[in-house]
Parts: sequence; structure tokens; C-alpha cells
Amino acid sequence: MSEFWSPSVRELTPYVPGEQPRERLIKLNTNENPYPPAPGVEAILREFPADHLRLYPDPESRALRQALADEYGVDVGQVFVGNGSDEVLALAFQAFFRHGLPLEMPAITYSFYPVYCRLYDIERRSHPLDDHWQVNLDAFSRDCSGVIFANPNAPTAHGHSREAISRLLQRVTNRVVLIDEAYADFGGESAVPLVAEHGNLLVTGTFSKSRSLAGIRLGYAIGSRELIEGLERVKDSFNSYPIDSLASAIGIAALEDREHFAACREKVITTRERTRQRLEALGFEVLPSQANFILVRHPAQEAAQLFVGLRERGILVRHFNTEVLSDFLRISIGTEDEMDSLVETLEVLCR
Amino acid sequence: MSEFWSPSVRELTPYVPGEQPRERLIKLNTNENPYPPAPGVEAILREFPADHLRLYPDPESRALRQALADEYGVDVGQVFVGNGSDEVLALAFQAFFRHGLPLEMPAITYSFYPVYCRLYDIERRSHPLDDHWQVNLDAFSRDCSGVIFANPNAPTAHGHSREAISRLLQRVTNRVVLIDEAYADFGGESAVPLVAEHGNLLVTGTFSKSRSLAGIRLGYAIGSRELIEGLERVKDSFNSYPIDSLASAIGIAALEDREHFAACREKVITTRERTRQRLEALGFEVLPSQANFILVRHPAQEAAQLFVGLRERGILVRHFNTEVLSDFLRISIGTEDEMDSLVETLEVLCR
Repeated sequence: MSEFWSPSVRELTPYVPGEQPRERLIKLNTNENPYPPAPGVEAILREFPADHLRLYPDPESRALRQALADEYGVDVGQVFVGNGSDEVLALAFQAFFRHGLPLEMPAITYSFYPVYCRLYDIERRSHPLDDHWQVNLDAFSRDCSGVIFANPNAPTAHGHSREAISRLLQRVTNRVVLIDEAYADFGGESAVPLVAEHGNLLVTGTFSKSRSLAGIRLGYAIGSRELIEGLERVKDSFNSYPIDSLASAIGIAALEDREHFAACREKVITTRERTRQRLEALGFEVLPSQANFILVRHPAQEAAQLFVGLRERGILVRHFNTEVLSDFLRISIGTEDEMDSLVETLEVLCR
Repeated sequence: MSEFWSPSVRELTPYVPGEQPRERLIKLNTNENPYPPAPGVEAILREFPADHLRLYPDPESRALRQALADEYGVDVGQVFVGNGSDEVLALAFQAFFRHGLPLEMPAITYSFYPVYCRLYDIERRSHPLDDHWQVNLDAFSRDCSGVIFANPNAPTAHGHSREAISRLLQRVTNRVVLIDEAYADFGGESAVPLVAEHGNLLVTGTFSKSRSLAGIRLGYAIGSRELIEGLERVKDSFNSYPIDSLASAIGIAALEDREHFAACREKVITTRERTRQRLEALGFEVLPSQANFILVRHPAQEAAQLFVGLRERGILVRHFNTEVLSDFLRISIGTEDEMDSLVETLEVLCR
């Protein structure tokens, strides 16, 4: 506490990201991709002229936005980019969710959303998941400042179909519905095609997971021109040049290599399903996943103890210390070898 | 305007950065450094392992902050880093300037400050510059939410001495005094040594100008631990990982090369003073500058017309379309060759 802080700063409870260990561990705790980025990314690093860095980047990030527009079949004016999808989300909260009514979200979802609510002084209305640990789309109302959830949801890994999202959008037409598709590339159905019909739909995405670029901080949003213009107004009042020249070139190189993208995605999905079978054979319940992680629990083993046992044996997974999730572990999908080590270690721990 | 926008978004008037031309021009409009970044930056590009980008960066940017701490002789806990100093400033407005009283600043200073005021709904109290186009430090009061100005100031280029800043700090002890030193490396006197005695002093800086790294987006703040902790609380409620892994490595490489830094700075200062003499010989008034730009006016020539004439001949400078500044041009200091072209072209235009 400090007398110099704005009073509101005292009320903040910052987001706590997964641990970034300094020692050498099998790191299955922050949903990073175990495979390297596209070879074109390496080429950018080797060839990018250092002298170019003395100049400001394009404040509009036009080339990167065009590459995303081409990828998703939308107009460049329907694409917004930011310094990681966390920044895109923060700006969206400010641009769209301050109407003096609560923002609606699932009770279990990306834990940064409640943090943004406190940052921007937005009330929150949370709806419990249904009996299958799925987001209850029917619970969302029109009487709100907006609706937000991750699809596939985090950390539960279930994704609703585009058809289900479409039904929600037929009902909630008066506020922005923000669908965070950070994990959609691993088997989820993207809602981006619905943007054409629904001016209030904003879909966010990230290069961190399916493009293996968590280290370069690139996120984006796709929506109607009027929503993108709202984001641009806030962004241009906050930071004119959020995307550096190198990150922009690297993002474009990653988007260009569709084969590498598809191959890595397939490998992650295959390993995920193989890991599921092996964990189920050990007695784990594994929630259905369309993401690059799984949420698991064991009827006879305490999650917190498994977490510690894995950590002691050099494997880092995520345990959430909340009442509802304390029985579970969230495990990112690594390489086949890494998942072999995980399964073998859990075999020992569950004996 | 959109029904989906938060009402406050309608009131925003975004900052407008200098033009980033796509054609080949002599670019003296955004205060970029005409010299390349340190050779070590190129080495990072050539050697950085692309595979490392699949992992999240250190959310605390510890290595970069330590390098800055070493450079400025402070503790790592006294250093904050952000995605360009614009982001650092935005977070500082939120962290420190929301006490329900006006924020005090000069009437002429970095034009992003009033934009942040509107973004965070902070009232502003502006004090005219003195008769020598200098910030009037005596005008600032204790009865405010804080004090902010650039030193050297933009676009007037005058910098106050550390002693003058010290006198201000002896008077304004109850709120944060934020001194934006984006241009201080070109002959200004840094206030960082005063941080030890004044818990309410926050000094911001950037790699964009004196480190030739506008394209990589790195800024920082130095202050007491309690001010840095306030910034961290807001940052961790906005974006956990603002600094990407590559930018961090590049920033450290730039800080390591003190010789390159000193040499580029000297060249800019020498060229600035030579340009001043030559423009004065053409009849221009050139305000004294401790920055990498000069603010000039001609008693017999309209600035707007000179701006257009220069643009037509391939030279881009900055003209501010405000009542007080409309007589002036702001000219960034380029290479000797670029400034030769500038002076020769102005010679023709002023005939």
C-alpha cells in the first residue's frame, strides 16, 4: 500500500500466470506448444535487417492484419492485433463492457476475466457450469454489459459447436459476445464464420499456442468493422505501436506455413487422445478435450499430492487452489516422450 | 459510433503519431535515431534460437530490468519495463493519477498526456510555458493528482537542470511527479539520481531514441520500490507478459554497448548544433535543444508552407496544427547528409 497509488489500485488482485521455472523440467503447466514455430520464423530471425529496428513499426500493423484477414477469409478492417491476446482482451473489456450492468461469464473460465473486471470496475455475473463441466450457454441473458467465455473453455477443455454459439447469438443481440478461441485450433469449431451475420460477435485468438509463439506476444480479434474500430480507438489512446516490427514479421511467417501448422496440431491432438487412454487405464477421469491440455482427476488420489509428487520428479503441471477445481490437475500436451514420462510417473504415484 | 461501445469510448480522441511513409523519404518527423542499433543487436537476431519462442517469456522481465538497474545504479526492484514508454506512461496514469483532482502538466508537452487523461477520466490542469518556451516548474502545485512533463520537453526541446527538478520535488512531496526522459540522453540532465531521496519521483525512459530501437518497443520507469510495485499491480491486471523474449534480449544487448551508445549520441548532438548554425544563418529562430530534434520558425516564412514544400521535395518533418505551435516546424536530427539536404532545400524554399 502506498499513499501515492490511485485508490483503485489497492483493490486490484492481479492475475497469477503459471510458473516459469528456471531449472530444467518437463513443462506441462502453461499450455505451450512442444513443437518449434514454423521454419520461416527462423528465417526471419536470420535475415531481418537490424538497422530496420531504429524506425517505428507501422502503428496499424497492416501487413500482419492482412495476413490474418487472408487466413480467416475476412476483410483487413475486421482484424485487430495486440501484444498477446491478454492485451486484446483488456482493451476489449474497456471498449465494450462498461455499460453499468454486470458482465456475464461462466463461473469457471479463464481466470484473467475477473481480474479485468476489477481493473475496469465492471461488475461480474457468473453462471455455474452444467453437470458435464460445460459452459451453460442458456444461462446468458440480454440484461448485461456483455458476455465472455473461452471456447474451448479453460481449464475444462470442452468446446461448444458453432451451431450452439449461433443459437446464443440469435438471442443475445444487444451486447458484445466475446468468444476467446485461444485453444480452438486443437479441435474446436471456430465462430469466426458467424462474424459476417452478427455485428456484436468478437472472436479473439493467439499465436501463443497453435503457432508455437508464446515468446513473441501476438494476439488478435476478429469482428465487425464497428467493433474493430472501437478497439482501435482505445488502443490509440493507450499505445500507438503495440506490435514491434520483428513480432509482426514473425507472425506473418508463422501464418504462411499452413503445413507446419497442420502437422503440429495433428501431433498434439494424437498425443492428447493417446494420453487420455493411458490415464483412463490408470483410473483417471479425463474430461473430453478440444484443447492442447486435459483436465483430469483420480477418484482415489489427491490432486495436490499428485502435483507435488510430479514436481519432485521434474514434471510441472497446473493445480488450481479453488474449491471447485481442487480435485483436478490441468496437464498441457507435450511431446510423446514427455507424455510417456508423465504417464510413467503417475503410474508410480498412483500405486 | 456504435451501440456496442462502452459510452466512454465515444469521448476518446486518440493520439495521432507522426506519419510512417511507405515511399522513400528523408524521414525527420518522428525523432528516430538515424544510426543503427548496437552491433550486439544484430548478433541476437542471428543467434537467438527460434525454438525458444514457443515458451512464454519471463513475466517479470528480470534480466532486462537488472541490465537497466546496472546502467542507472539502482536496485532491480526500482525498475519497471513496458511495451514502449507509451505503455509505461499509460499504466502510470492508471496507477498514480486517479485521486479525483486535476493532473498538472505544461500546456505544451507530449501530446499523448491529454489522451491518457481522457482514457482514464482524469481532469487536467495545464500551465502555460514561460516566455522562453520553457516549462514553468513554479506553476505546479501540491493540490493535484500528480505532475507530469517531459524533460527535455517535447516539442520545445528545452531541458531543466537536475537542481531545478530537485527544487520542485522539495515542494511537491504528496503526489507522484512523473518526469518523462525520452530525450534526456541527447544532452539533458537525468533526474534518476534524485529517486533515492524522493519516493514520489518516477522517471520514464525509452529505447526508441538514443538506443535506435523504436521498432522493438521497449520503455521503462525508475522510481522507489513502492511506485514500481504500484505499476506492477496494474500491469499484472492488464497483461502478464508485455515484453517478448526477443525484445528483452535485444534491449540487454543495446545496454551492454556503451561505446556505440556514446558515439551515436555524440554524432546526433554535433549534427544538431551544426544544423542550428546553418538554419540561423538562413534567418530561422531555433529554440535551444537538449533533444534529438529542434523546434524552428522563420520570421518571414509560413511553417505550413515550408512543411508542404519539404514534403514535395521528399523531406518529412512535423508540423503541429495548433494555435500556439503553428508557426513552428519540429525537425528530427538525421545524418549529416540528411541535414545537408534539409538545409539546402530550405535555402531554396526561403529564397
